[in-house]
Amino acid sequence: MKNVYLDNGATTAVDPEVLKAMLPYFTEEYGNASSIHSLGRAAKNAIEQAREHIAKSINADPLDITFTSGGTESDNLAIKGVAFKNKDKKTTKGPHIITSQIEHPAVLETCKYLERIGYDVAYLPVDKQGLIDPKTLKETINENTFLVSIMAANNEIGTIQPLQQLGAICHDYDAYFHTDAVQALGKMPLDVESDNIDLLSISAHKIYGPKGIGALYRRKKVPLQTIQHGGGHEKGLRSSTYNTPGIVGLGSACQLGQTRMKEDVAHMTKLRDQLIKNILDIEASYLNGHPTKRLPNNVHVRFDAIEGESLNLLLDKNGISAATGSACSSEKLSASHVLLAIGLKPEESHGSLRLTLGRTTTQEDIDYVSETLPGIVQSLRNLSPLWNR
Amino acid sequence: MKNVYLDNGATTAVDPEVLKAMLPYFTEEYGNASSIHSLGRAAKNAIEQAREHIAKSINADPLDITFTSGGTESDNLAIKGVAFKNKDKKTTKGPHIITSQIEHPAVLETCKYLERIGYDVAYLPVDKQGLIDPKTLKETINENTFLVSIMAANNEIGTIQPLQQLGAICHDYDAYFHTDAVQALGKMPLDVESDNIDLLSISAHKIYGPKGIGALYRRKKVPLQTIQHGGGHEKGLRSSTYNTPGIVGLGSACQLGQTRMKEDVAHMTKLRDQLIKNILDIEASYLNGHPTKRLPNNVHVRFDAIEGESLNLLLDKNGISAATGSACSSEKLSASHVLLAIGLKPEESHGSLRLTLGRTTTQEDIDYVSETLPGIVQSLRNLSPLWNR
Repeated sequence: MKNVYLDNGATTAVDPEVLKAMLPYFTEEYGNASSIHSLGRAAKNAIEQAREHIAKSINADPLDITFTSGGTESDNLAIKGVAFKNKDKKTTKGPHIITSQIEHPAVLETCKYLERIGYDVAYLPVDKQGLIDPKTLKETINENTFLVSIMAANNEIGTIQPLQQLGAICHDYDAYFHTDAVQALGKMPLDVESDNIDLLSISAHKIYGPKGIGALYRRKKVPLQTIQHGGGHEKGLRSSTYNTPGIVGLGSACQLGQTRMKEDVAHMTKLRDQLIKNILDIEASYLNGHPTKRLPNNVHVRFDAIEGESLNLLLDKNGISAATGSACSSEKLSASHVLLAIGLKPEESHGSLRLTLGRTTTQEDIDYVSETLPGIVQSLRNLSPLWNR
Repeated sequence: MKNVYLDNGATTAVDPEVLKAMLPYFTEEYGNASSIHSLGRAAKNAIEQAREHIAKSINADPLDITFTSGGTESDNLAIKGVAFKNKDKKTTKGPHIITSQIEHPAVLETCKYLERIGYDVAYLPVDKQGLIDPKTLKETINENTFLVSIMAANNEIGTIQPLQQLGAICHDYDAYFHTDAVQALGKMPLDVESDNIDLLSISAHKIYGPKGIGALYRRKKVPLQTIQHGGGHEKGLRSSTYNTPGIVGLGSACQLGQTRMKEDVAHMTKLRDQLIKNILDIEASYLNGHPTKRLPNNVHVRFDAIEGESLNLLLDKNGISAATGSACSSEKLSASHVLLAIGLKPEESHGSLRLTLGRTTTQEDIDYVSETLPGIVQSLRNLSPLWNR
């Protein structure tokens, strides 16, 4: 049977080169990086080398990279870490945070938690294509805003935000600018300097690295309190025994992603645009998100009178792995908050399909999906009481 | 050159069988366990199977196992999770926590943090062998105590605590009993039922599993608040994309550890006792910790007029990997809080050496260390102004 994986937005296969780099650290170079013996020092060296690769991929100082267990922890650390420190320091800033309505749950739920314990959070709206208008940020930010968290690119519809402009506004108001770049890394240039970014979250498993490892970039001046107490690793910012194979994997994935970015982006953009064009040939189908300011691997469409979960199950039966919305929320049955924020009705939201390409997606994959999808959509519509054309 | 690894208390090499179980989940069965397609469901199934192996190794219900990034996160989740929920619920309990002076920093630093934000924490003393007297707990616990956290076995000196008795006292006072079993798992029987345990932390990399993965056992009745907000994984207790290879590795390591425990313990105990006997033949050397209530793999000794770090570096030069105290605190130069708690002076603490055996430690390893160590100790003493015999 065909095996076409178009769910790279949920997770990617580990690149064989990345796995090869990781392998020695399980059974040979297995020392604890905090140990002073040779095995420990070898692990420590590998970790510091990985830190450099990661830093380079976002034009950062390696000293500003902190390892975490993934994107969710990075977002939690960035937002709670700054919030708790801001409270501790009793700065002149009030407890005001700004984020957007379309953030990943790791940011949104963290912000809602902070609201429950006394912080004020503003959730910026987006337009019909998922874009945040910098003017809206300017109207919302005030002298009490100590942190703004806006994702680089959306995990569901792929819309890319104007980071540079948003960051500049934050800095005008002396607020720190955090961005969740989990989906963006490796698929668009990221530069913490020119993009005015103070904190940035990344995850390995979205860029052909292993699951369970991520990092937070934090500009030195940003006061941050740890949220995981213990042995004082990572200069006290994140305690836990170093996950050496994971860290090496993240470093290798970043290095590979940098080297290949131009090629990967060109390849995926070409296939993405073909796939979008072919899908939109299906009657009563629509593109979600922005036509051009969008991740090169993201195809997000909706179909009238279609139930996304059934569509996914039939695609799966035909050897195509896809997603209804965001994999992270696929255990929930409620309509996607992102699709509601761009103005879709709940029933429109439920008729959506996300196809996310990867480095290894082929022309045949795209041809196969383009040939298979129309028939599946038609067969579901034939069963649907909502389809009456 | 010889390569004798006696730092298994810091971390273990991944067992080849465990690595073999993990490998498919990097590059073949790489789906996101939250995805509804076949690849996602395959990952989910592997995770649930691992959960069963883990639960079985501590006689728990699989539904009570939550995956984390390691022992440190498990300890943070157990203690903060119960503390924050206790505060939220406005129960009749006051904000009183009891722990011990010899806990791992993941517990101690978490408790110190809670103290800073308004909780009361009592730190129980231990006797000269590192034992907590249940009477001391009984004298300290009161109607405001909602949580007691006492480690199963100490990570430095290996002393094993009377869990069952301590847990019973907690339950008499309606307090939840948490134990950090990171060092104990696989080296002694653990049974959350007969040991009266409500929360228990484990980590894979101490039991021949991978780094970056751990779990928290939590009895259903224990109210717990998440400390990592996001997509709502693990019934909302711990959000983050499932680290499938890591989880499979933890499951495999637990299964293997259960199967082999009797054999491993007998093997390590025999070699441990030989090594202790041989080392104590060195002039002015002493055993730290309890002679019998101690982990089967733990040798912790101190030498008059010796500086532990130099001793470790010379051992490393001779192909022996050891530790000065706890690997987790080896980046710090202060005297071990555990050794101070058992009544050693700072200079005595600095003259300590931890040798931790593993499943693959051989008779030749023990013979080699027994032959090599006396000469190294003598050579260091020859240089020491403190050695004047």
